[in-house]
Amino acid sequence: MNKLYIVGTGPGDLDWLTPSAKQAITASTDLVAYGLYLDLLGAICDNKTLHTNALGNEIKRAELALDLASENKTVALISSGDIGIYAMATLVFELLKTKEDESHPWQSVELEVLPGISAMQACASRVGALLGHDFCTISLSDLLTPWETIATRLEHAGQADFVVSFYNPRSQKRDWQINYARDVLLKYRPASTPVVLGRQLTREDESIRIIRLDELDAKDVDMFTLVSVGNSETQQVMHQDKTWLYTPRGYSKKL
Amino acid sequence: MNKLYIVGTGPGDLDWLTPSAKQAITASTDLVAYGLYLDLLGAICDNKTLHTNALGNEIKRAELALDLASENKTVALISSGDIGIYAMATLVFELLKTKEDESHPWQSVELEVLPGISAMQACASRVGALLGHDFCTISLSDLLTPWETIATRLEHAGQADFVVSFYNPRSQKRDWQINYARDVLLKYRPASTPVVLGRQLTREDESIRIIRLDELDAKDVDMFTLVSVGNSETQQVMHQDKTWLYTPRGYSKKL
Repeated sequence: MNKLYIVGTGPGDLDWLTPSAKQAITASTDLVAYGLYLDLLGAICDNKTLHTNALGNEIKRAELALDLASENKTVALISSGDIGIYAMATLVFELLKTKEDESHPWQSVELEVLPGISAMQACASRVGALLGHDFCTISLSDLLTPWETIATRLEHAGQADFVVSFYNPRSQKRDWQINYARDVLLKYRPASTPVVLGRQLTREDESIRIIRLDELDAKDVDMFTLVSVGNSETQQVMHQDKTWLYTPRGYSKKL
Repeated sequence: MNKLYIVGTGPGDLDWLTPSAKQAITASTDLVAYGLYLDLLGAICDNKTLHTNALGNEIKRAELALDLASENKTVALISSGDIGIYAMATLVFELLKTKEDESHPWQSVELEVLPGISAMQACASRVGALLGHDFCTISLSDLLTPWETIATRLEHAGQADFVVSFYNPRSQKRDWQINYARDVLLKYRPASTPVVLGRQLTREDESIRIIRLDELDAKDVDMFTLVSVGNSETQQVMHQDKTWLYTPRGYSKKL
């Protein structure tokens, strides 16, 4: 009653859905999500009122979740991966902020945020230990963030030699940003630096490709792809006919 | 048989342990871990051979896991959080690399890496949506990494305006690095920037404190504390008598 669970369900495989996330969904009467995420969850969603809408209507989705929870319902607002990483969680709080100085039904809602395994972690685990040392994430979507901010961040990520995971690397309209990012990183780390293209991670049609940084190109990336770039110390090792990647914690040379 | 699961078990609460991680541990005959992690797992560890040793002997722990798996056992090498983030996974691959050009029993071992919910994600979820936009992690341990590298990385994280999570913020010997990090970030973001001190996340004695960046001090941090610093856009909102934090995806000013 008057509860909103903000839930990350992991990358797709139900064995990566935490018990706490599953319990939250099970306890809810109403589920609010982009339709695909509910399809992936399957039978867990039975006997609940499902509210799905198009991917772009995130503000409406968050508003709906708060509205429903204000009406004595127990609601789960669901994203795949970790809902706190670039996803819906921050929107809920942005909306609450707009009502902070007045009295509003949303203020009756008890909140609980439950993280999930993110795409970045799933991708890194498929190839070994890519996130073994300092890393960062950068969203290449300039829909809400000025491109100048993103470009500056890319320069610093390059100079700092972070392992970098790119969220929102590509969309129909945004088809050059990942190449720009590649060229920035190429100024600071070797052309042979390994890059992982992780697509549909943990799902039936999962594909993992390891390429060189100078081979990275927007044509090989779509909106279902997570792009993770090793740092200058990331190593490759062959084991049982497969290439594994790891970023060691010891440093053989200074930055 | 001849299998090594490299498993992250999440921050502590068993409801945050993924089914895949639990299945890996259940399927194993031998568990290798720092003793505390196995205590947290409880009955899942019954009827297995447990190999525990002191926290510092990470290389020996990884070697043991590979040795046991080479001897026809099914082994789970376990860390709390996400074993791919700063933890044991990268060590396993570093060890395999040393044997890459010869024939060695370790090469008979099938590997599988299973990520878990990291401390950083647990901390962010407790306060709301701190990781709503670009973020990075920096380890303040200069045991294996030159301090110059860390200092450079801090400067760039500050200039890039990342949300920053500090792993290994403090130990008995390392008691000034977090203050140095604070001072670097204070050059680039407001003194009032919120910082979360998340201690023993999801465990019985969990504590979450939100302070200002200029209040951050090593005396309030220990080895069980995750320190996450908001960026210059991170906001606070009061909701049901609690302070929540979120980092919005839209930017109100340019960097």
